[in-house]
Amino acid sequence: MIRVGVVDTTFARVNMGDIAVRELKALSGSIAVIRRTVPGVKDLPLAAKLLLTKEGCELVMALGMPGPKPIDKTCAHEASLGLIWASLMAEKPIIEVFVHEDEVSDERSLYELTVKRVKEHALNAYFMLFRPEELTRGAGKGLREGGPDAGPIGGRY
Amino acid sequence: MIRVGVVDTTFARVNMGDIAVRELKALSGSIAVIRRTVPGVKDLPLAAKLLLTKEGCELVMALGMPGPKPIDKTCAHEASLGLIWASLMAEKPIIEVFVHEDEVSDERSLYELTVKRVKEHALNAYFMLFRPEELTRGAGKGLREGGPDAGPIGGRY
Amino acid sequence: MIRVGVVDTTFARVNMGDIAVRELKALSGSIAVIRRTVPGVKDLPLAAKLLLTKEGCELVMALGMPGPKPIDKTCAHEASLGLIWASLMAEKPIIEVFVHEDEVSDERSLYELTVKRVKEHALNAYFMLFRPEELTRGAGKGLREGGPDAGPIGGRY
Amino acid sequence: MIRVGVVDTTFARVNMGDIAVRELKALSGSIAVIRRTVPGVKDLPLAAKLLLTKEGCELVMALGMPGPKPIDKTCAHEASLGLIWASLMAEKPIIEVFVHEDEVSDERSLYELTVKRVKEHALNAYFMLFRPEELTRGAGKGLREGGPDAGPIGGRY
Amino acid sequence: MIRVGVVDTTFARVNMGDIAVRELKALSGSIAVIRRTVPGVKDLPLAAKLLLTKEGCELVMALGMPGPKPIDKTCAHEASLGLIWASLMAEKPIIEVFVHEDEVSDERSLYELTVKRVKEHALNAYFMLFRPEELTRGAGKGLREGGPDAGPIGGRY
Repeated sequence: MIRVGVVDTTFARVNMGDIAVRELKALSGSIAVIRRTVPGVKDLPLAAKLLLTKEGCELVMALGMPGPKPIDKTCAHEASLGLIWASLMAEKPIIEVFVHEDEVSDERSLYELTVKRVKEHALNAYFMLFRPEELTRGAGKGLREGGPDAGPIGGRY
Repeated sequence: MIRVGVVDTTFARVNMGDIAVRELKALSGSIAVIRRTVPGVKDLPLAAKLLLTKEGCELVMALGMPGPKPIDKTCAHEASLGLIWASLMAEKPIIEVFVHEDEVSDERSLYELTVKRVKEHALNAYFMLFRPEELTRGAGKGLREGGPDAGPIGGRY
Repeated sequence: MIRVGVVDTTFARVNMGDIAVRELKALSGSIAVIRRTVPGVKDLPLAAKLLLTKEGCELVMALGMPGPKPIDKTCAHEASLGLIWASLMAEKPIIEVFVHEDEVSDERSLYELTVKRVKEHALNAYFMLFRPEELTRGAGKGLREGGPDAGPIGGRY
Repeated sequence: MIRVGVVDTTFARVNMGDIAVRELKALSGSIAVIRRTVPGVKDLPLAAKLLLTKEGCELVMALGMPGPKPIDKTCAHEASLGLIWASLMAEKPIIEVFVHEDEVSDERSLYELTVKRVKEHALNAYFMLFRPEELTRGAGKGLREGGPDAGPIGGRY
Repeated sequence: MIRVGVVDTTFARVNMGDIAVRELKALSGSIAVIRRTVPGVKDLPLAAKLLLTKEGCELVMALGMPGPKPIDKTCAHEASLGLIWASLMAEKPIIEVFVHEDEVSDERSLYELTVKRVKEHALNAYFMLFRPEELTRGAGKGLREGGPDAGPIGGRY
C-alpha cells in the first residue's frame, strides 16, 4: 500500500476531500488515503507537510476553494507559495487543487467544476505515483483539469 | 496540560489576546496558555515560532488587525507569508486570525466581528488539538469565521 | 550588558542609526549597541542576521527610508520579507522601522516623523528585551509608532 | 556523461520537453537527458529539485507555458519563485523556460516562438555546463531567447 | 587577496561585468575578482550563492538590467527576492545592482547611468569589505547610486 494524503478545508463550499478520497480509491486498490481537514487554504501547507514528513505519505492532494474577494485571492497566493515550499522541504509532491468561486457564475456549475477538477487531479496523482510515463504522453497537450482542454498546437520540430 | 501560544499586537484596536486566552480556557481545562504581545503583525511570525520551538507550545494563535491603507495590506501579506514559513519550519500549526479594519464600516461592528472571529478560531484550535474529526465533519461546509457562513453547495458525487 | 544591533542605510535622508543608538542608550545602561550601515533597505536582512548570528546581538533594529517611487515600494516589500526570513532563521527579533518618504509632504515633517518613530520603536525594543509585560499591557491599544495612536475600541467581552 | 534534467507540463500547448531533449542531444554527445512531465508550472520546482538531488542531474531545464489569464500570471510568478528556491536549495542551476501564451497573437507564432526559445535556452544550458566562457562573451549583448535581440549599447568605459 | 564575485547577464544591454571588474581592481590591489555570466536576472541568485559557498568569495556584486515590460518587472522582483535568500543562506553580502531600461529615455543616458551606478556600488562593495566605517559616515545622507543624491534632511535630534 502507498499512502496518499488528502487535505481539504471547512472554508470550501464543496466537500472536496470526499471526492478526492473516493476517486483515489477507485483508481487503485494499492492506495491508502490519510485525510485531514483544516479551516482555510493558508492552513494547507503545514497540514500537507506533516502528512509527508510524519505520516509517511508519498504524495498529498491539497484542496481549496478561494473566495471571490481580493483578500481571498491574496490568501490563495500565499497558500500556493506555502505549498511549493512545503513540497521542496519534504521533497515529495503536493498537488494543489484550487477552485476559485468566481471561475463560474452559478452554484451548480461551481459544483460540477469542482468534481471534475478534483477527479482529474486525482488521476494526475495516480499517474505521478504509478505511471509517470502517462504524464509524459500528455506533455504539451494543453490539458486543463476541470475544463475543456486548450489542446496542442500542431507543427513540426 | 497542552501548551497553546497566543500572540497579539499593540497595533490592533481590540485586545484580541485577552479574548483568545479566555476562550481557549473556557473550551478546555487541559490547555495552558502562553501569551505574548508584539508591536505589529510583522512581528508575529518570529514570536509564534519561538512559542513553538522554545516554549513547548503545540499550536499558536497569531492575532492581528491590519489597518485600511495599502501599506497595511502589504504588511499583512508579508506577515501571512511569515506565519506560513514559521509553521513549516516548526512543523506545528499557527492559526492566523486577522481582522482587517476596513471589513466593516463602524467601530462597534469591528469589535463584534473581532470577538466572533477570535472565538471561532479558538474553537478551530481546540478541534485541531483534541478533536480533528470535527474539522473533517465541517469539510466543504463553507464556514466563515466571524461572519455568516457561505454554506455548502448541494449536489451528489 | 545585552548586545543590541542597529542597522541603517546611506539611502535614508535622516541619520536613523544615530537616533536609535542614542535612544537605546538613554533607555538602559545595560544595552551595548553594535551599529552597522548598509547602502539600501535590501541590504538590511543580511546585515541584521549577521548581527544576530555572528555578533551576539539579542535583537536588531533595522532602519530604512523607502523612496516614493513604485520601485522603492517594491524594494521595501522585498526587504520586509527578507527581514522576516532573517529573524526566523536566527530565531531572534528584528524590529523593522521604515519611514516612507511619501508619508508626509514636507521635509520637516519627515524628519519629525522619523525621530518619533525610531524613538518609539527603540522603546519597543527595550520592552521586548527587559519588560515584555509592558507590551502585553499595550495589547489592542491601537498604538501607531510615530503618529497619533488609533486607540482602542471599547466594548466588553 | 553529464546528466541533464528536462521537466515540462501537460498544461503547455507545445511539447516543449521533446524540443529540449532533441536539442540537448544535438548539442553534445556527452549529455544524458532525464525527462519528467508534470501537470502545471507550479509542479515544476519540486520535479526540478528531485532531478538535481535524487537523479544526479547537474542542471535542469524547467519548461512551461503560462496561460493568458491573471490567475495564470500568478501561477507563473509562484512557479518562478519556487524554481529559484529549488536551485538555491540544491545548489545547481535550473534554467526557467517559460513562454506566455499571450506573447504573440496566433498559434503558429506561438509554436515558432516556443521552438526558438527552447532551443536557445538549450544552448545556454550547454554553455553553462561545458563552455561558461561563451556566456561571458555574450555579457551585455542584450540577448533575448526566442525573439530578436535587443542588442548592446555602444559606449566606452 | 580577498575574493569578490561579479555576476552579470547576457540579457543586459551594457557589459556591466566588465565595468565592475575594472572598478574593483582600480579600488584595491587586494581584490581578486571571480566573474561569471548567466542568461538573465533570475539566474543571478544561484550564481551568486555558488560564488559565496563554493568559490570562496566574501561578497558578490549581482548585476542586471531588467527590461521595460511588466513581465520584466516581475522577473526583477523574483530575482531580488532570490538574491536576498541567497545572501541569508550563505551569510555573506550580495550587492544587487539593477538598472531598469526605462529609468531613462535614451540609450546614451542608459549607458551613462549604468556605468555610474556600477562604479558607485563597486565603491560600496569596497567599503563593506575594507572600510565599513565609511558607510556609517554616509548614514542618512540620502545617497543614490547612479543618480543625483537626494541628500540629507537637516534637523537636530
